[in-house]
Amino acid sequence: MAQQEDHFKKVISHAKEYGYIFGSSEIYDGLSAVYDYGQNGAELKKNIRDYWWKSMVQMHENIVGLDASIFMHPTTWKASGHVDAFNDPLIDNKDSKKRYRADVLIEDYAEKLNQKAEKEIAKAKKRFGDAFNEEEFVTTNPRVLRYREEQETVLKRMARSLEAEDLADVKALIEELGIADPDTGSKNWTDVRQFNLMFGTKLGASAETATDLYLRPETAQGIFVNFLNVQKTGRMKIPFGIAQTGKAFRNEIVARQFIFRMREFEQMEMQFFVRPGEELKWYEHWKETRLNWHLSLGLGKENYRFHDHEKLAHYANAAADIEFNFPFGFKELEGIHSRTDFDLKAHEAHSGKKLQFFDHELNESYVPYVVETSIGLDRMFLAVFSQSLEEEELENGSTRTVLKLPAILAPVKAAILPLVKKDGLPEVAQKIIDDLKYDFNVAYDEKDAVGRRYRRQDAAGTPFCITVDHDTLEDECVTIRDRDTMEQKRVKISELSTILHQKIDFKHWMKH
Amino acid sequence: MAQQEDHFKKVISHAKEYGYIFGSSEIYDGLSAVYDYGQNGAELKKNIRDYWWKSMVQMHENIVGLDASIFMHPTTWKASGHVDAFNDPLIDNKDSKKRYRADVLIEDYAEKLNQKAEKEIAKAKKRFGDAFNEEEFVTTNPRVLRYREEQETVLKRMARSLEAEDLADVKALIEELGIADPDTGSKNWTDVRQFNLMFGTKLGASAETATDLYLRPETAQGIFVNFLNVQKTGRMKIPFGIAQTGKAFRNEIVARQFIFRMREFEQMEMQFFVRPGEELKWYEHWKETRLNWHLSLGLGKENYRFHDHEKLAHYANAAADIEFNFPFGFKELEGIHSRTDFDLKAHEAHSGKKLQFFDHELNESYVPYVVETSIGLDRMFLAVFSQSLEEEELENGSTRTVLKLPAILAPVKAAILPLVKKDGLPEVAQKIIDDLKYDFNVAYDEKDAVGRRYRRQDAAGTPFCITVDHDTLEDECVTIRDRDTMEQKRVKISELSTILHQKIDFKHWMKH
Repeated sequence: MAQQEDHFKKVISHAKEYGYIFGSSEIYDGLSAVYDYGQNGAELKKNIRDYWWKSMVQMHENIVGLDASIFMHPTTWKASGHVDAFNDPLIDNKDSKKRYRADVLIEDYAEKLNQKAEKEIAKAKKRFGDAFNEEEFVTTNPRVLRYREEQETVLKRMARSLEAEDLADVKALIEELGIADPDTGSKNWTDVRQFNLMFGTKLGASAETATDLYLRPETAQGIFVNFLNVQKTGRMKIPFGIAQTGKAFRNEIVARQFIFRMREFEQMEMQFFVRPGEELKWYEHWKETRLNWHLSLGLGKENYRFHDHEKLAHYANAAADIEFNFPFGFKELEGIHSRTDFDLKAHEAHSGKKLQFFDHELNESYVPYVVETSIGLDRMFLAVFSQSLEEEELENGSTRTVLKLPAILAPVKAAILPLVKKDGLPEVAQKIIDDLKYDFNVAYDEKDAVGRRYRRQDAAGTPFCITVDHDTLEDECVTIRDRDTMEQKRVKISELSTILHQKIDFKHWMKH
Repeated sequence: MAQQEDHFKKVISHAKEYGYIFGSSEIYDGLSAVYDYGQNGAELKKNIRDYWWKSMVQMHENIVGLDASIFMHPTTWKASGHVDAFNDPLIDNKDSKKRYRADVLIEDYAEKLNQKAEKEIAKAKKRFGDAFNEEEFVTTNPRVLRYREEQETVLKRMARSLEAEDLADVKALIEELGIADPDTGSKNWTDVRQFNLMFGTKLGASAETATDLYLRPETAQGIFVNFLNVQKTGRMKIPFGIAQTGKAFRNEIVARQFIFRMREFEQMEMQFFVRPGEELKWYEHWKETRLNWHLSLGLGKENYRFHDHEKLAHYANAAADIEFNFPFGFKELEGIHSRTDFDLKAHEAHSGKKLQFFDHELNESYVPYVVETSIGLDRMFLAVFSQSLEEEELENGSTRTVLKLPAILAPVKAAILPLVKKDGLPEVAQKIIDDLKYDFNVAYDEKDAVGRRYRRQDAAGTPFCITVDHDTLEDECVTIRDRDTMEQKRVKISELSTILHQKIDFKHWMKH
């Protein structure tokens, strides 16, 4: 746990130091839970988005893109259920005037019970050494059993109360457990009430005539309201998909864990429209396809797992998360949801317009069922970045910090380094850059000894360093160094473009 | 004029019919001045953005990217001047309760004078035929002279009043000119007042504790507040640039001309930081560089012109627009502004932090000067799309509708067409797709006669059609047809990838 926390801190500071992520408006002391992507972060984020887009849209003849606006007609959110049901349960402390999410207070309480159990286990492990049988211990030790049982009881009761919208019981639970304001220790709580998470704004010039708008809390609805436009103008036949990337906004009360949960974030969503009755087949198909997409990045199979939802949202008949091993444990990275015909039917009801597909093979019209794949681009960024950051012990006993980003996602593909700043070497390096820069994002670096430059590029995540030395002037060869293996190879300048293409191109990456 | 309007109508309907642009939330009867990009529009928009990004960031070692959030600390907009001065002058008609931009009412009045003058010229042209000397006529005809003079007087007085914030005189002008509500004819006007164009929202859970935020009205300020973060972590040396694309929002009262002026739009901006005193040299450099970028798309040199600003914004010491020949005349497509040190100094003053660069060559610190290039992505889309759409008369007397998008920007690069839906031709077509789809967005089309499919792809903007016929089974050759010339050529399947790369790759495009 402490090791994980330590790694997380390193991730955050490394992200800032190497121009990946800055706090928003830092010169004004920041804006809570909003972040800016720096010169390297902007490229990594763009490369992840492009990799998803190519995999989902370009590679599938029956999936097309869409770019719907953030502003939508407000009835959209009435139909989707967000106006009525997109809420967090809030509670205020009357003494401190601080506001909390009631469910988070209870979850934190439950987590403490879990930590107590873990502590007992760790203690016993230390005491018994190799003889320790963890499975037996956790099923027999009375303390561990009691902590685990209470944890489960608390979480179950909370879930039941929230499900039944019994907010009085949520408050009663907080009081029974003696949960205090984490900042002040006061137990003087207000009632629990629901707070809608959508950001509102007003379109138009005056209070009387303005239209109340929301900033979209998800991109999916932009796809649903355009379903028929795309299907008809694109002559699409079921099954087909519509994919979209774009910003969404949620007025989170307790936003935390760096870029994992932000108030402004970016989604990459695909809605796949299928025949009613075939949705579960496609749901399985997309679960597998999306997991394979993640695995294609080579971050380690052991860092992913499925979490099938037992409790389903009102619109779903099957749902699973692909969870990733973040620095703070396994958490949702992507969701795959069988959303039935809930959304299209709701939009039919609210718009009075038919959102149906005429299936020539079946000779009938129907409202398609939908299987959705939904991933947070910022979460994906955090997954890739945190998993790539390593403190590596070298054979000579020293350590190096290296950011082993998948080459296809790395912001800068190659750094071109003249061994010295004279003798015409910078000019040769410049010529190499002028040749490569049309196809690749490359950088020039001439400052400090070459070993130090290697380390700097390692830490920045650059997969290849290309060094120009005095021999280059004779043999037209350069040294290409691999970030991960640190192996160096001498190659012809004329071969560089082909080598990089083979390491980085989408085609080669997908086929390797 | 009528011809232009007619073309504009065609642009709008073609954009919808071929999946480029839909009204936002159309099933709910739309949201005024907000649009969604359909399956082809999303690709064209993305390709324009990528073309800009590659040209500006990847091709320049001293320009890096950034992706700042839409939400920013509210003091940002105090410092930038947007809270106090980002206003439109509004006027209400007391009878109709309709609201107008006072400056637009006056401009429309002036435009009518212009049209009267044009009408006189057209009449004279018709009367005198070949003998007509337009230059002499417009400088001597008393009516034309009077119309032109009044037009100029009206516009000058309005500009003066707005500049002096003399809103009473703006109202007086409207009354003196007898301008009536265009809808009802009523001249019963309220006073003119200023209306701020920023969209507001609230961050946080309750009215008392919430922070008032704005949706950014421009992306530029995200670059300024991150100037030091990027300079330091990216080890940038003056002169250098920071480039960014992203959404911005303006609560336009009168939004019109399709996607030309929207309430939600996307900008592509680059701020170039230079030594004080060198800004006008760089201003000239970027004017020329940006015009050349536009010309690289091959839409016709005659469709661009510079418009140097006589009246400068408070932050600028030089400014010019690159205007494009839109379907409604020459209008601003991109702005190049020498913004001096206004923004960085304002952020220094409001944040209390130093935003300076230590120049090793000069051995001194200074607040850099800034030259900005700022282009609306949606406007660029409209420029490319409207200029590419042609009704072409063919040699046989028939016409074809063709969307001659630059190949590098076209949503689908090639359509693969089996001549017939049998005899194994679809399978060969599929194999070609499976080979090309890693590198290119390609489409499959088997419906209707091949001539009709060619026309459909012409209208959709697909630069190449690749037809598989019975001979293909023998000779492994296909026919590749060029959208613009309609020339057909027989080539080896194995050469297709190379041919497309040479026509479409950024490298070949920039060098051709």
